[in-house]
Amino acid sequence: MPYTPPLRDFAFILDHVAGFDQVRATDRFAEATPDMVQAILSEGGRICSEVIAPLRRPGDTTPTRLENGAVVSPPGYAEGFGALATGGWIGISAAPEFGGMGMPQTVSTAFYEMMSSACLSLQMNPLLTQGQIEALEHHASDAIKALYLPKLISGEWSGTMNLTEPQAGTDVGALRTKAEPQADGSYHISGQKIYISWGDCDFTQNVCHLVLARLPDAPAGSKGISLFLVPKVIPNEDGSLGQPNSLRVVSLEHKLGIHGSPTCVMDYEGATGWLVGAPNKGLAAMFTMMNNARVGVGVQGIGVAEGAYQHALTYAQDRKQGPTPKGATAIIDHPDIRRQLAIMRAEIFAARAIAMENCVAIDMATATGGDEWSARAGWLTPITKAYGTEAGVTVSDMGIQIHGGMGFIEETGAAQFLRDVRVTTIYEGTNAIQALDLVGRKLGDGGKAAFALLDEMSATASAADMGAPVADAVHAQRGATEWMLGQGMEGRAAGATAYLRAFARVLGADMHLRAAQAGDAARVALAQVYIDHLLPEHAAHLAAMRSDPAAYMGLSPEDLTA
Amino acid sequence: MPYTPPLRDFAFILDHVAGFDQVRATDRFAEATPDMVQAILSEGGRICSEVIAPLRRPGDTTPTRLENGAVVSPPGYAEGFGALATGGWIGISAAPEFGGMGMPQTVSTAFYEMMSSACLSLQMNPLLTQGQIEALEHHASDAIKALYLPKLISGEWSGTMNLTEPQAGTDVGALRTKAEPQADGSYHISGQKIYISWGDCDFTQNVCHLVLARLPDAPAGSKGISLFLVPKVIPNEDGSLGQPNSLRVVSLEHKLGIHGSPTCVMDYEGATGWLVGAPNKGLAAMFTMMNNARVGVGVQGIGVAEGAYQHALTYAQDRKQGPTPKGATAIIDHPDIRRQLAIMRAEIFAARAIAMENCVAIDMATATGGDEWSARAGWLTPITKAYGTEAGVTVSDMGIQIHGGMGFIEETGAAQFLRDVRVTTIYEGTNAIQALDLVGRKLGDGGKAAFALLDEMSATASAADMGAPVADAVHAQRGATEWMLGQGMEGRAAGATAYLRAFARVLGADMHLRAAQAGDAARVALAQVYIDHLLPEHAAHLAAMRSDPAAYMGLSPEDLTA
Repeated sequence: MPYTPPLRDFAFILDHVAGFDQVRATDRFAEATPDMVQAILSEGGRICSEVIAPLRRPGDTTPTRLENGAVVSPPGYAEGFGALATGGWIGISAAPEFGGMGMPQTVSTAFYEMMSSACLSLQMNPLLTQGQIEALEHHASDAIKALYLPKLISGEWSGTMNLTEPQAGTDVGALRTKAEPQADGSYHISGQKIYISWGDCDFTQNVCHLVLARLPDAPAGSKGISLFLVPKVIPNEDGSLGQPNSLRVVSLEHKLGIHGSPTCVMDYEGATGWLVGAPNKGLAAMFTMMNNARVGVGVQGIGVAEGAYQHALTYAQDRKQGPTPKGATAIIDHPDIRRQLAIMRAEIFAARAIAMENCVAIDMATATGGDEWSARAGWLTPITKAYGTEAGVTVSDMGIQIHGGMGFIEETGAAQFLRDVRVTTIYEGTNAIQALDLVGRKLGDGGKAAFALLDEMSATASAADMGAPVADAVHAQRGATEWMLGQGMEGRAAGATAYLRAFARVLGADMHLRAAQAGDAARVALAQVYIDHLLPEHAAHLAAMRSDPAAYMGLSPEDLTA
Repeated sequence: MPYTPPLRDFAFILDHVAGFDQVRATDRFAEATPDMVQAILSEGGRICSEVIAPLRRPGDTTPTRLENGAVVSPPGYAEGFGALATGGWIGISAAPEFGGMGMPQTVSTAFYEMMSSACLSLQMNPLLTQGQIEALEHHASDAIKALYLPKLISGEWSGTMNLTEPQAGTDVGALRTKAEPQADGSYHISGQKIYISWGDCDFTQNVCHLVLARLPDAPAGSKGISLFLVPKVIPNEDGSLGQPNSLRVVSLEHKLGIHGSPTCVMDYEGATGWLVGAPNKGLAAMFTMMNNARVGVGVQGIGVAEGAYQHALTYAQDRKQGPTPKGATAIIDHPDIRRQLAIMRAEIFAARAIAMENCVAIDMATATGGDEWSARAGWLTPITKAYGTEAGVTVSDMGIQIHGGMGFIEETGAAQFLRDVRVTTIYEGTNAIQALDLVGRKLGDGGKAAFALLDEMSATASAADMGAPVADAVHAQRGATEWMLGQGMEGRAAGATAYLRAFARVLGADMHLRAAQAGDAARVALAQVYIDHLLPEHAAHLAAMRSDPAAYMGLSPEDLTA
């Protein structure tokens, strides 16, 4: 099943919805001209379609395995990654001085969406490397930057993130891995890490681990965590490879999906590492990177949704079954099937536009240093992550349903999208954590970022032909934001998920209104589909948010047993 | 992870929600005394928990395979099925004259729910056999009944349903399998059938296939289909096994879930079969059985939801992570987790109560022959099927989420529930077909059955303390029913899914109100959770239902491409 890059949507969103012109008007990103961006996305789309998409099924049926302690990746992954590396696709947003393209994150994110549609398991590898590049650019010493960044950006080496330990998942502050200072300024790292994606790799020459660990004198909890760079092979100063480090992959997890991506249990036994950033400030350094990684994971959800959607759309056009009300026989002409396809498409468009809007804010913050852009990006990030990944699950699930019985047969490929994408609502902070971040830390500005967005949405809705229900929803969301600001910790925690979902719904409607105002009849119809079929959920979320948590907090485990 | 049968819920629903007293007040089911039913369910629950539940994981990790054309089932399945057969559990509702218990379907359905929680793959086998028993009881000749029923009821032989062909799925009228009459009154059946669950079985001595096929002079389409009984081994008149028949399993499907259940491609090459029911009336005969099979599949969804829920509840009590707002550390004390658990429990209760209500109507129709009971059962059946299976998917998905990263690791077992249950919204008529049945054939009575239920719900809501939002929803659903009655074929088809989901939501709220009126504080709290968190979706469904399908029917495949 071929993959068609959504280039039309990207161009339309950049030009007419997400205001990308502001980004290219900055000095920093002046090179991101319309022609340049179009050329990058179109060539990137071609590679995803022709080189990466054919790796999706083989990676599922021939999972990555561990042989003598080393990862053996699925057939074709090495060649696919090689094409990404030699094409310069790993460092789209990385600094030119180390070999990157220096493009805005909006552009790299669009490319990473396409890579997610094509093959999520392989995409994980450069996505993590990109995160490591960003972390090193911001927090590493010049020596580390000079040694590591060119290798990571060129794809000769790859990068990982090591946070989780068996007892420290969501509560990362509970981690126990130790770092002992050595006379030469390095550290010896010891401990076990779990859920390490691409913890080993057979198509890069070195694997560089960013590891959270505790110094001997570190305070307890999340304030005593430092960040270390721990390579699989210790490089010499000239960048050539030296001695193997004291770390190993203990085992790989057997997972529901992304079978091509090795999820490693890692053991560090006095492995040599170097501090990145200040002592005990590791979590802050990691969070800089994680905020953008969260956008990246949201976009993984959107990318898989697009892949699942295209798969279902093609099937619905090919599959003949029964006379439809209009007498045709392809199942796309059945109202229930076309309704589902239109909802899937409307959902993907909204999530994609929100992610692009988010990236524009990130790029503007980078280019201008403006606090308002940072606050806007910070507000949108948990929404992009949670909404994008939930759209990934919902759309992939609908894709299975459209295939009927064939959807349950693995060879069809429809089920793989759901199995692969299912992790995205969990990792990089579960979606519940995203919601707590939104109503906690992000609402810590007294709602300034939220109200600014609501003001914009209100203006769009009142100017739009079909804007009345959206204006009502914006108004209700404003009230919900005030309500949330008045809540204590338990009230915020209880209503967080519903609040985030409601905000995403009204923001999605806003994106569709903007598209309808600038677009053709099909964009108007798609906006109508969103307003008719998805926006009505908004009121349901707000009703749930305002309900009294006492009803369920009072239910004991015994009450909860049937 | 142990399975705890929901005996408390069953007893409470039978006594206080679904009005089972009416059933045991009939002559036909007078033996279904409270003590008898309690004894059956408690012993059945024990077998599911102790004997069947341990087979769930092994059936997933050691899938059924084909060896030399014969199915080899997972380790332990033969012994598990043996326990069901010797305990008399296959014929709970079957006629006593052939060895059945003669119990109401309400009782057998409760047992089948527990079996679904324990091991869906194995449950498929007796469920299909039970369907065949019912079809033969209603439509077969006395000779066939005498020969086959005792063997099926005792579990010596098993039964299958053969409807689908590659070109004939939802549109079963497109099937091509042929039946040629023979001089001795038998028929030779030739054709290929797909998606045949347990098309072969290594723990029963014979496999009896009910096959839809066309006689030589049959009219085209669904009016030219006849039903045949085609055994794997042709029995002698005394019930002993004779010659093998001309049929074989060509291959097994590689599926997303229910790996323990073989899904067979079957070839019939002049296989000997016998007509069941009248020529060309096969679809009607099959539909009698399918109506009850649809209830059975809805209950599969509920059973898997219960299994997934218990799994998540146990994990949430055991898993320590982070300080909660109240300082505790088990994740069940986090408001977002407890909210999800309470919603899962409220959803399962509502779906279970609807299924039991449905079964009571079926039993009353059987016992009294009353048309109103039949109409009520007919109305509730697509709702039980669609709502039960969608609850299965939703609750299993939430179960994964509660496990965090562990939910994505197969060894945990949480993901298997979702993979297994995913087929239930598809087979036995996709849920879209259920919705079309509801707004088409079932609304063909001018809404009589629907309005009768709405009247009852209205009375319950107006008498209940927390009934106001339910009363509003009932009122809106009445309006939606009138609206639907005024629509033509395309309007009904377009709004069908939303209408069904809305009806299910308000019916679920009604079940909770009845429970709250008769139950303790926990039942009241659970009803409140349903009203707060699930009932608000009702208005969203009705808004979607009333929207103009032109918005999406006008979108061409090109418009639908990003």
